[in-house]
Amino acid sequence: MSSQIGSVYKLSLFGESHGHSIGCVIEGIPAGTNLDIDLIKKRLNQRRPGKDKYSTPRGERDTFEIISGYHNDMTTGTPLCVTIKNIDKRSGDYKKTDAFWRPGHADFTGSVKYNGANDLRGGGHFSARLTAPIVFAGAIAEQLLAEKGIEILSQIQTVNCITAESFESLEITDNIRQMLDAEDYAIQTPIKEAMLKTVDEARRDKDSVGGIVEGLILNVPVGLGEPFFDSFESKLAHAMFSIPGMKGLSFGKGFDFTSMRGSQANDMIYKSGITVKTMTNNNAGINGGISNGMPIWFKCAFKPTASISKTQKTYNYETHSVEALSIEGRHDPCIALRAVPIVKAMSAIVTYDLYRERQI
Amino acid sequence: MSSQIGSVYKLSLFGESHGHSIGCVIEGIPAGTNLDIDLIKKRLNQRRPGKDKYSTPRGERDTFEIISGYHNDMTTGTPLCVTIKNIDKRSGDYKKTDAFWRPGHADFTGSVKYNGANDLRGGGHFSARLTAPIVFAGAIAEQLLAEKGIEILSQIQTVNCITAESFESLEITDNIRQMLDAEDYAIQTPIKEAMLKTVDEARRDKDSVGGIVEGLILNVPVGLGEPFFDSFESKLAHAMFSIPGMKGLSFGKGFDFTSMRGSQANDMIYKSGITVKTMTNNNAGINGGISNGMPIWFKCAFKPTASISKTQKTYNYETHSVEALSIEGRHDPCIALRAVPIVKAMSAIVTYDLYRERQI
Amino acid sequence: MSSQIGSVYKLSLFGESHGHSIGCVIEGIPAGTNLDIDLIKKRLNQRRPGKDKYSTPRGERDTFEIISGYHNDMTTGTPLCVTIKNIDKRSGDYKKTDAFWRPGHADFTGSVKYNGANDLRGGGHFSARLTAPIVFAGAIAEQLLAEKGIEILSQIQTVNCITAESFESLEITDNIRQMLDAEDYAIQTPIKEAMLKTVDEARRDKDSVGGIVEGLILNVPVGLGEPFFDSFESKLAHAMFSIPGMKGLSFGKGFDFTSMRGSQANDMIYKSGITVKTMTNNNAGINGGISNGMPIWFKCAFKPTASISKTQKTYNYETHSVEALSIEGRHDPCIALRAVPIVKAMSAIVTYDLYRERQI
Amino acid sequence: MSSQIGSVYKLSLFGESHGHSIGCVIEGIPAGTNLDIDLIKKRLNQRRPGKDKYSTPRGERDTFEIISGYHNDMTTGTPLCVTIKNIDKRSGDYKKTDAFWRPGHADFTGSVKYNGANDLRGGGHFSARLTAPIVFAGAIAEQLLAEKGIEILSQIQTVNCITAESFESLEITDNIRQMLDAEDYAIQTPIKEAMLKTVDEARRDKDSVGGIVEGLILNVPVGLGEPFFDSFESKLAHAMFSIPGMKGLSFGKGFDFTSMRGSQANDMIYKSGITVKTMTNNNAGINGGISNGMPIWFKCAFKPTASISKTQKTYNYETHSVEALSIEGRHDPCIALRAVPIVKAMSAIVTYDLYRERQI
Repeated sequence: MSSQIGSVYKLSLFGESHGHSIGCVIEGIPAGTNLDIDLIKKRLNQRRPGKDKYSTPRGERDTFEIISGYHNDMTTGTPLCVTIKNIDKRSGDYKKTDAFWRPGHADFTGSVKYNGANDLRGGGHFSARLTAPIVFAGAIAEQLLAEKGIEILSQIQTVNCITAESFESLEITDNIRQMLDAEDYAIQTPIKEAMLKTVDEARRDKDSVGGIVEGLILNVPVGLGEPFFDSFESKLAHAMFSIPGMKGLSFGKGFDFTSMRGSQANDMIYKSGITVKTMTNNNAGINGGISNGMPIWFKCAFKPTASISKTQKTYNYETHSVEALSIEGRHDPCIALRAVPIVKAMSAIVTYDLYRERQI
Repeated sequence: MSSQIGSVYKLSLFGESHGHSIGCVIEGIPAGTNLDIDLIKKRLNQRRPGKDKYSTPRGERDTFEIISGYHNDMTTGTPLCVTIKNIDKRSGDYKKTDAFWRPGHADFTGSVKYNGANDLRGGGHFSARLTAPIVFAGAIAEQLLAEKGIEILSQIQTVNCITAESFESLEITDNIRQMLDAEDYAIQTPIKEAMLKTVDEARRDKDSVGGIVEGLILNVPVGLGEPFFDSFESKLAHAMFSIPGMKGLSFGKGFDFTSMRGSQANDMIYKSGITVKTMTNNNAGINGGISNGMPIWFKCAFKPTASISKTQKTYNYETHSVEALSIEGRHDPCIALRAVPIVKAMSAIVTYDLYRERQI
Repeated sequence: MSSQIGSVYKLSLFGESHGHSIGCVIEGIPAGTNLDIDLIKKRLNQRRPGKDKYSTPRGERDTFEIISGYHNDMTTGTPLCVTIKNIDKRSGDYKKTDAFWRPGHADFTGSVKYNGANDLRGGGHFSARLTAPIVFAGAIAEQLLAEKGIEILSQIQTVNCITAESFESLEITDNIRQMLDAEDYAIQTPIKEAMLKTVDEARRDKDSVGGIVEGLILNVPVGLGEPFFDSFESKLAHAMFSIPGMKGLSFGKGFDFTSMRGSQANDMIYKSGITVKTMTNNNAGINGGISNGMPIWFKCAFKPTASISKTQKTYNYETHSVEALSIEGRHDPCIALRAVPIVKAMSAIVTYDLYRERQI
Repeated sequence: MSSQIGSVYKLSLFGESHGHSIGCVIEGIPAGTNLDIDLIKKRLNQRRPGKDKYSTPRGERDTFEIISGYHNDMTTGTPLCVTIKNIDKRSGDYKKTDAFWRPGHADFTGSVKYNGANDLRGGGHFSARLTAPIVFAGAIAEQLLAEKGIEILSQIQTVNCITAESFESLEITDNIRQMLDAEDYAIQTPIKEAMLKTVDEARRDKDSVGGIVEGLILNVPVGLGEPFFDSFESKLAHAMFSIPGMKGLSFGKGFDFTSMRGSQANDMIYKSGITVKTMTNNNAGINGGISNGMPIWFKCAFKPTASISKTQKTYNYETHSVEALSIEGRHDPCIALRAVPIVKAMSAIVTYDLYRERQI
């Protein structure tokens, strides 16, 4: 029923890919916060497509305008509304496919849901472009969490069969932080070339490829999340599965747990000084739905981009027959690459929301 | 902030494992519904432990009492409250471990969250026993969905390395329905013996083992779910990750998508009579967060039961040292086995909630 | 859509007047709270009918049982469920009126809303008896507010044409506190006899009479409430208008404002030591929806009890004609008398909820 | 915690009086609705100040722009965002009063709530200007209700001691409809001149005056609203008390009930053809919180405008002393006059929300 998320840090999303503007209304930013505009711009730039051959060449500029809730470089405490105008929208590219229900897209489901009235141009409200305001809200949450010492990282962990070292074991050095926070792609240097080559191969084949984005949340205080329905996992999962193309999520050992025994899976608890820790971190820093202070790490599986130039067959609802379709628009050959800042944003939004709830 | 789930079909959960009663308040059942009490009892019995050596020998009887919202064998339309008394609670068994933070449990996280005031006996509000009222509410949702022709199945798909045929390809015959709806375990006959043997081996080793439960939702109308935050996947994920021990979730090809190309992953759309279908169903019946009418299938990864009799080391907060612990209570060697009716219940609760929202 | 109220201190209400039990689930009580059981009993007793000729002679005993969320005399931090069994329910009394839509009652509206399936006995879920769990939850909120120095008073201000001194001018001495906190009725001594005489006259005439209950909230911190939709007035009004029989609400000068000029109505702001105060308090301690630290005072108008023994005409849906009806059950001649602890409870629930929200 | 209202028809409000823009995000408009732009403009114009000497001469033009959720003259079914730019903002006028906490305003409470960070210019987010987006959303709800045959009227019922015939007895003819829907003021012709004279006198005295706005909702289906917390009265009250300056609300006989007896107050139920009706309508079409099909009528008491040019004393937080203040900005001498379309809008928003909830 809702384009909203959050209970204290709340986000209300609006807009269509080829409409006037996209944006969101954010509630719950503390009054008097001086926003880190550079961080917001950096994150939006990381999400932005069109930077090179690994992402769609659309020139989305994502220039945002804060139209309420911000005065004298400070948040006012009342709702902050941000808008991003849609400028580079070549609706022409999409005309051809207008009568097709593109495979893997919401063309069919959206038209039934909205009785054919929804704005189909560029995916309308379903467009991945709507993740820009989410990244905006995520950057603010990231800033607010950083002030509390909580840090969020995300990286490409797998593309096709090429795999980076997981956050499970990766030591987070400043070098790693810089590597993953670079403006182009959050890929560890040793496998970067191979990964991008795989993506480029898919692109040259007019095809696309899937991947895994990994998230890591460090220095989470003990006690965030709820037993049962609002577990930390539930809240993160709710947010992650709203990212277009997300189809799988695992915390810690995840699916590998299924072939483990309890004696291996359990994380032994001990105390290091005044801090409670676990020897291993198979459970990803969450027990009974509640953070235990250890790093929270998780994997998000993304399907290959549904929009491909390669010819495929699907239903044309004007001719009422299955026909060949070649989607000529501009598409990312691997949405996982662009999902890195979105996974980070969603992690920040959820974690900050839980952090604030805990203050009550 | 909340022990609640649902927006139209709403569930408010309460109770502790060794307290007076557990139960829930349910809103959103249509007035005048004659509840299928036999179905409720059957589902509760499937969840109930203590039936044989594959589950904990606790004699939880799960006798429920509807104390409001039901009159003359009909729901009244106002909130229905159900309570289940806690009878067979041998708190003695748990005494020994009182000063231990059991690995993989919420003992530590819960004590921080609730300032040491929570009821630790038997896991308190964190106990898997709280899934009984969830199964109760799920059985009602299952009945209400069945009246609309919507069907939900769940099965054990993997224990250790033993794997049943997935719902992806399994033809759902009446034979399969009966096999999976039997009161003991929802395991396909051909691999049942091998699976239970694996579980029994873990039990004999005083250990436990993980597994995968698969869910299947059939005949879902087109148009359920929302773009972005309340996608069908988001809502299901939110519910599933509140089940104790759940650590991974995938829809359709899930993590296998990451090594696929778009041309393989996309499901070709066609029309069969007046019904829109897809040739494959890699996306598990959901596009853009919204149901497309094809079966919704997903996998839930469960970790091995955290409570094991095998000796393990952990922190004793009275002696302030890491000590050997052997949990002598009664435990399931494989929580995945008992999670089958819970996954079914959660699926029914979420699907019925989305179904009702769509009626607005 | 909901039998719930509150966003941090949350209440979920259930039960029917003549069903098994009534009760509620409360979330948001801080873990480790030692409940003031005596205060709860006192407030329930103040609400309880059947004490004398001024209230219905029903012997509702309101013996409550806390069935979750309370262990070792402390709240656990997880949901607290309380039930009150329905014992003295003489459904016989109500049989006669079964086929009548009683004037001023929800018989007709409820039967349409719930398709005739609701439990009509004794008003079912619409019964004023459901205010007992509300008073229970209110007493807990009152205790929690008292720990913060916030105090809530309520009194009968008007019955028929007899009027007590308003909280606008009444000096709150310990004597007044005791007078209004007596277990029988919160009426100032000087006019008590006259007021009760008026009520008794109505009772002897087999009729009923309306009245005004006044509420007063003292020592509210500055800053509670929101601009627009969740103003302090909005939240209080939402709660108050859910009390059966409530038909009017005013804050401060209320309807008297309409014949005043701004120069009279405005409350001059000054500083007394470090505390900001206003010379007058026409606006009842709320500006722009937000508490200003001055006393919050308001009037609640209650209609006369709808159930009267006096013969009146109404529709009989079995005979399909308008017929004479004399309601022979046991009824309060003046619901305002019993509403005093309910207005106090609702005030406490709302104020504590806003207080907690402000802590975030 | 929230600048939102509604559960199906949802409104999220943003903006400050002198910021970039004000506006709102609306969810829950059926996809494919062709909005009645003329009705929206008419309602905004009725709310707009600066038309004559009875309202502030500010030239707020309230030109709105729909920036999402509307395509090809149809709602898309996804969130609709509307913005209204702030053009005529002479912040200069307000400078003088910057260091004063204006009596009856949120200057003091807002500065505490938002730690001094809120935008105080022109009242910021507290400004009555924020009612423009509410009127926008109300006009859409009004259109959607009209399609179901539900009609909403509002009128000035009292200014000072001058009183129009109440909706309780007024026969709603087309003539009355036109009289009350005129673009200037919703005042019945016979007393219009006298009322406006009273307002003008206050204005000439550099003062202001209060008043009562009456609301009327016709043809409401039986069954809208809930027992207890979400009663029709509760929902309307919640909305009405968020209108700046609202200080009292009564349904039907309201405060007059307090001197009535039950035998007078009860509305006799009968049947007229297939329609259930009541002989009188003292309870204003609501029994047990639920609509009974009779007209819903209610009175909203507005205090005199807090901003007056007349000299008054209040606290100056720069000089730390009480000083004389004359507010030189442009102000309405009677906010009740301008509240008429706002009361109508709020009524429409709440009624349509309840109407949609009932469809589930």
